[in-house]
Parts: sequence; structure tokens; C-alpha cells
Amino acid sequence: MPVFVVVGHRVNTDGLFTLNDLAGSTGRLDILLRCVNSTFFLSNDIRRDAEIYLVLLGEPDAPKTIRFAGSEIKYLNPDERSTAALVKNALMQNVGAGEEINTSPGVYVSRRGLKEVLDVFEGRKFIHLMEAGTPINNMDLDDDLIVVLGGQYDLTEDEENMVKGHEPTPISLGPNKLHANHCITIFLNELDISKQ
Amino acid sequence: MPVFVVVGHRVNTDGLFTLNDLAGSTGRLDILLRCVNSTFFLSNDIRRDAEIYLVLLGEPDAPKTIRFAGSEIKYLNPDERSTAALVKNALMQNVGAGEEINTSPGVYVSRRGLKEVLDVFEGRKFIHLMEAGTPINNMDLDDDLIVVLGGQYDLTEDEENMVKGHEPTPISLGPNKLHANHCITIFLNELDISKQ
Repeated sequence: MPVFVVVGHRVNTDGLFTLNDLAGSTGRLDILLRCVNSTFFLSNDIRRDAEIYLVLLGEPDAPKTIRFAGSEIKYLNPDERSTAALVKNALMQNVGAGEEINTSPGVYVSRRGLKEVLDVFEGRKFIHLMEAGTPINNMDLDDDLIVVLGGQYDLTEDEENMVKGHEPTPISLGPNKLHANHCITIFLNELDISKQ
Repeated sequence: MPVFVVVGHRVNTDGLFTLNDLAGSTGRLDILLRCVNSTFFLSNDIRRDAEIYLVLLGEPDAPKTIRFAGSEIKYLNPDERSTAALVKNALMQNVGAGEEINTSPGVYVSRRGLKEVLDVFEGRKFIHLMEAGTPINNMDLDDDLIVVLGGQYDLTEDEENMVKGHEPTPISLGPNKLHANHCITIFLNELDISKQ
């Protein structure tokens, strides 16, 4: 199963933001919402065999991680606002250290940071997306892959080193540097093609 | 220059909708907003050499077409709400038959329907995206292409016939049927790769 991990360095962590200003008042949660859309939506279907972790590192209660599990998701729509409502609801729940709680079908919240999330996948195949990587259409990909992405900002050097600890394979999607949600869309389509 | 034409069969045409309910109150304008995002946004840049036409066919004042011209765009942000505000503003202007008026930098409104928009590109190369087309990564593409897509719904038979009148080349992006915005993201990335 492809798993995406997207870091929101400034994204709000208590859910006390307005749904009417997602790009302005949330520390750019909107970027991560578009990543959720790209992870799950096909034209008339949902990708049940995919997951995304949103690692939120902004004020005032970081870190928190929201996990969307495609196999269980029920009330997901493709627009930013309705997905933001699911995230807001998850962030407003009381969650203790070391636990992960279910806040709506297929949506979970925990107090994990990036390192704890990556450790879940210890021993699995990690992908490092970079313009200098191997072109993805030359790769023979199975789909049991972990892809770590920055949201508004690139990963910090510390975060890059956490990913490198999992010996990622460098892959290039194309010549341009793209938004995280566009990377996810292209990556999943290439997986679809390589499974044909 | 790649040009995308996306049909919003039910999308509101007078701009009298709330920005707080884009998926519910607009006839699914949200789908077309994501297409605008996919057409223009690179990680830290805008694709200046791209255009998108949103052909709106919903109540109460159809047809109207909103054109976004990458070469002129100034106030475009990647989130749905701020792009919706540009569309709402364009729809609320008085525009007469046969004219196209500029409503903000790079944004235009006219009373054209699909046929009139396609006729602008008479003699240019049209692309028909379909699962049974030639795989895009086997094509040698120049980027002077017109791609016509349905938004919430597939093109009707009449609309399909309008496109077929321009002798489109059938191209496949992959095995799954995808949302229009995801098609645009993948298509542009393939153009980037073929220009390398």
C-alpha cells in the first residue's frame, strides 16, 4: 500500500481556526488538504489501498498527526473545506501521549511527530522524491512504498536525515519542482501504470 | 501553449453564491477551481505559458466562460476559496454578447459556450483524453495543444461531437478514470518531461 507522509511545519494544532480562511488562518493547512484529495480520489471511486499522514508542527500543541486510512474512510469529499472540517474535528479531541484515537470513519489523531511516524514503517521501502532521482517511468515499482513530502516548506535538514535513516530510493517525477499534492497525483498514476 | 477547456455543466453563472459552501451551492465550481490550480502552480512558480477556459453552463445566465491567462495572472493563490472569489467577481460583471471583458489581471469573462470556445482554436491540435488512447509517455508531444475535459460530468454526446469536429488525438494518461484536475497535473508533467 502506498503511504504518504506530509509535514505541515506551521499548521495549527488545536483546531481553533475558521473554515472560512483556510489559507490564511491555519498555517497553510490548505496545502495538506489538497494532498488528501490527491491520495484518495479517482473519478468515481476512492483509493481504498492508500494512506496519508499529516504531521502538523505548528502552534500551539505540536506535534500532532492526522492519519487518513483509505480502507475505512466514509465521509470524505474532494473539496478543501469539508476535509478541513474532518481535520479540525480531529484536532479538537483530547488525545494523550502514546495513543491514537479515531475521530471519524478512517480519520485518526495522535501526538506523534515525524520520527515516530516514520518509525511505524521501519524496514519498509521509502521513496525520496527529488529532481535528480531516477525517472519514475524507468522504475519497476511495487506499491508498498512510503513517500515523505514537505508541505509549504521543504523538509528541514534534521527531517531529511530522519528520512535518510530509512535508506530511501531517490526518484524523479519530472524536471520541475511541484506542489506536494501534484507529486502525489503523478506518483499514484505511475503506480497504476506499473501495475497494469 | 497548452490550453485546457473544462465544462462545468451545472456551475452557477451569476456569481450569487457564498464562498463558504463552494461544493454545495455553486453546482460544483470547486471541481473547476482545482483545475485552475493544476494548470498554473509549480512549487515556487506559475506556469505562464498555459491557459484554462472554464465553460459554465448552469443556472441562471448560461453560458458564460471564464478564461485564466497565465501570462497575465497576478492575484492567483492555490486554495479553492481565493480562486472562487476571482470567478465570483468575473460572473458578477455585466458582459454583453460577443465581448470578453477583463475582470482582474489575467481573468476574463465572456458569454461563450463550448462551441464558441473551441472555434477559437480552429486548426490547432486537439487532445482527447481517454483510457483507450495512446499512452502519453509513448507520444512525442509539442505543447501547442488544446485539451477538453468534463468537470463533474463527462462531456455529453453533443459536446463530444463538437470536440471530434476538431479531429482530436486520443491519448491515455493511465488505466484509471481520474478527476479533471488530476488529468491536468499529469498531462502538464508529461509535457515537461517531453520538453527535456
